[in-house]
Amino acid sequence: MTAPPGPDLPLAVELFAKLEHMSLDPPGVTRDAYGSGEERAHALIRQTGKDLGLEVNTDPAGNTFVTLPGEQALPAWIVGSHLDSVPHGGNFDGAAGVVAAMSVIAGFVNHGVAPKRPITCAVFRAEESTWFPASYIGSRAALGILPRETLAINRSDTGKSLSQHMEQFGFQPQHVARGETWLKQEAVHAYLEIHIEQGPVLDKAAVPIGLVTGIAGSVRYRDAVCHGRYDHSGAVPRRFRSDAVLAVAELALGLDQFWADLERSGANATITMGQVATDPQHHAFSKVAGEVGFCLDVRADREALLKTIHQRLLVLIDEISRSRRVTFDLRTRSETHPAPMNGDLLGRLHGLAAGAGIPTLALPSGAGHDAAVFANAGIATGMIFIRSQNGSHNPQESMELNDFHKATKLLAGLVSEDTED
Amino acid sequence: MTAPPGPDLPLAVELFAKLEHMSLDPPGVTRDAYGSGEERAHALIRQTGKDLGLEVNTDPAGNTFVTLPGEQALPAWIVGSHLDSVPHGGNFDGAAGVVAAMSVIAGFVNHGVAPKRPITCAVFRAEESTWFPASYIGSRAALGILPRETLAINRSDTGKSLSQHMEQFGFQPQHVARGETWLKQEAVHAYLEIHIEQGPVLDKAAVPIGLVTGIAGSVRYRDAVCHGRYDHSGAVPRRFRSDAVLAVAELALGLDQFWADLERSGANATITMGQVATDPQHHAFSKVAGEVGFCLDVRADREALLKTIHQRLLVLIDEISRSRRVTFDLRTRSETHPAPMNGDLLGRLHGLAAGAGIPTLALPSGAGHDAAVFANAGIATGMIFIRSQNGSHNPQESMELNDFHKATKLLAGLVSEDTED
Repeated sequence: MTAPPGPDLPLAVELFAKLEHMSLDPPGVTRDAYGSGEERAHALIRQTGKDLGLEVNTDPAGNTFVTLPGEQALPAWIVGSHLDSVPHGGNFDGAAGVVAAMSVIAGFVNHGVAPKRPITCAVFRAEESTWFPASYIGSRAALGILPRETLAINRSDTGKSLSQHMEQFGFQPQHVARGETWLKQEAVHAYLEIHIEQGPVLDKAAVPIGLVTGIAGSVRYRDAVCHGRYDHSGAVPRRFRSDAVLAVAELALGLDQFWADLERSGANATITMGQVATDPQHHAFSKVAGEVGFCLDVRADREALLKTIHQRLLVLIDEISRSRRVTFDLRTRSETHPAPMNGDLLGRLHGLAAGAGIPTLALPSGAGHDAAVFANAGIATGMIFIRSQNGSHNPQESMELNDFHKATKLLAGLVSEDTED
Repeated sequence: MTAPPGPDLPLAVELFAKLEHMSLDPPGVTRDAYGSGEERAHALIRQTGKDLGLEVNTDPAGNTFVTLPGEQALPAWIVGSHLDSVPHGGNFDGAAGVVAAMSVIAGFVNHGVAPKRPITCAVFRAEESTWFPASYIGSRAALGILPRETLAINRSDTGKSLSQHMEQFGFQPQHVARGETWLKQEAVHAYLEIHIEQGPVLDKAAVPIGLVTGIAGSVRYRDAVCHGRYDHSGAVPRRFRSDAVLAVAELALGLDQFWADLERSGANATITMGQVATDPQHHAFSKVAGEVGFCLDVRADREALLKTIHQRLLVLIDEISRSRRVTFDLRTRSETHPAPMNGDLLGRLHGLAAGAGIPTLALPSGAGHDAAVFANAGIATGMIFIRSQNGSHNPQESMELNDFHKATKLLAGLVSEDTED
């Protein structure tokens, strides 16, 4: 093939505007997973696919697939992301990847050109873990690997189960439970995803495009607690206290110090204690805190690094428990595996960027993405980050259309190349 | 005078039992300030006074005064404490001092002996700051120094104002506002208070009685906040973060370290961060914390020491704000002054204890007491601590009757001595 057809940028602009308009919930936008917000957005993509004369499919979990046939009936490029947002989030987290896929596909349609192999825009449900306490629900269901018990978890706001939410729109949770899906792995050539960076690395480096080396795995404690003893803040001397606030403070700073050391050695990890709270039922202004709840989110690009950090956590807890006369109960641990991106795809993206004069930065993704599900399933996976501003999951989240355009050009270039399975 | 009449221990046992029975609220007891719980307890003391044939008075704030006349119309010993408790608290915090005063007075009545000067058992309202966000309401009103605006503060559970609560029982908040009172300062010889220690110092030292050298003053921030920036926990590297959890952790540990240094130098202080919380409206498991609320309670036995600690606090905040790219807003500061106990009274208590073979420990009170109001008003004030177990403000709070008996014997001895004004 010669030069790839240009992505349909006007369509992208139109889709972003429509998505924003239909999901405005000031401040920001809300597209609730398996709710009317997400469903309206999927309907827009389904209609856009039909308007382009393309095949549109919905799997038992409600994921949407818009397929452009290829010259040959080869395994397809699956290109996509998600359309759900956090409450009062931004318009680009997830949607940028879906809109990018549609604009690349529309570019082929506009130019009357067929790619060598089919290109399917995949729109996954419920990627964000805000609504249901689980991530990547749609993409895992799309691969037939969503654990049956996940269907029983409840949405945080409605209290209704995932099954009930699926049934509300006519989807088939009982099929999902049996691992039934539209997307056959043998028919997948590779999975590609465009996503805003959500972090400041590209923006601070003044580079528009990030080529993702891998998606971090994680070790998480969502509901840990430190038990000390409540004591009178004036009557109990320091040496007799079991202060849970100081114990958790020491843990937080100990982990932060360890992270600083890791960083100096070049390791890619993040360690975050995003929630802490004394117990509102028992704490008081004039009491030593007898209990502090906290969560911990450790991410790293290598399994061994996750283990190293976890080992340090256990050592710190042991030391602090003895020195501060407290106990820690970490409770339920959840884990995800680091998902390295495919080296061949990454190499070709670098080559395409170099050829097109697009500055890029190779970087790991600390944030999780549907792409991690595909990579961990053994499917060749590639990810492109678009420089973004003001993080994500907030109304100020922002992205330059110019940068988006560069990402879609790389994507169009990649899916236009002749490749063999 | 010869040997002082022995305190009426059976009366004390009876009063403790009646107080517990009438205020049981499992677990523990509840005597709500300016509520039915406290009022029932005052009614019991009023009735006990009348049964002993004594004069009973109620001031405009509802404080109760039971007076045993002296041989001469000299300024009186005012001996007392409070009867309100925290919700689900113990039976002895406050009540021990009131029951002690009544049992000492009853001892004189039982033996048909008159003290040289009158002895008034003073029962103050609303000492605990759980119910209304202010301490020592009753004792300050008794001295005519309760600020008028305090009458407008609301009780935390009912939402009704202090004025309304006073009126409910027929007290006169408008008289309180004008500083009217039953207790004339010129008629006060000295103020004495018995109280459980509330801390572990006497118990750990195996000493039954504490002679209080002074009551700590305080500097308090009840509603401080640290502002950082919310960021994605996976996507934002360490160097770009403004993590409010780590900033507050560093402040807590910095103050704790400073306290440890002070302690080694022999200084008497406590530094407590009893409440911390990320914002439930905005925090998330996968976000760097952009805001942490906290409180701070600093107590010390000397004004200069309070200043030293406060200065250190400001230095730490300045350092941490710069190094962690956060801001601190300490908001409203409240202060109380250290209240040294009267040296002459303290000396006589030591002498009486030595004479009676009662082991004592001289110690400062980190907890506040009505006695601080009297000492700070320039009235000679003495305080006796009874060894207690399991702290206070909880149902496990405990005190040995033997130890209580020793305290009442010291009190009886002190008020039996001939003293001149």
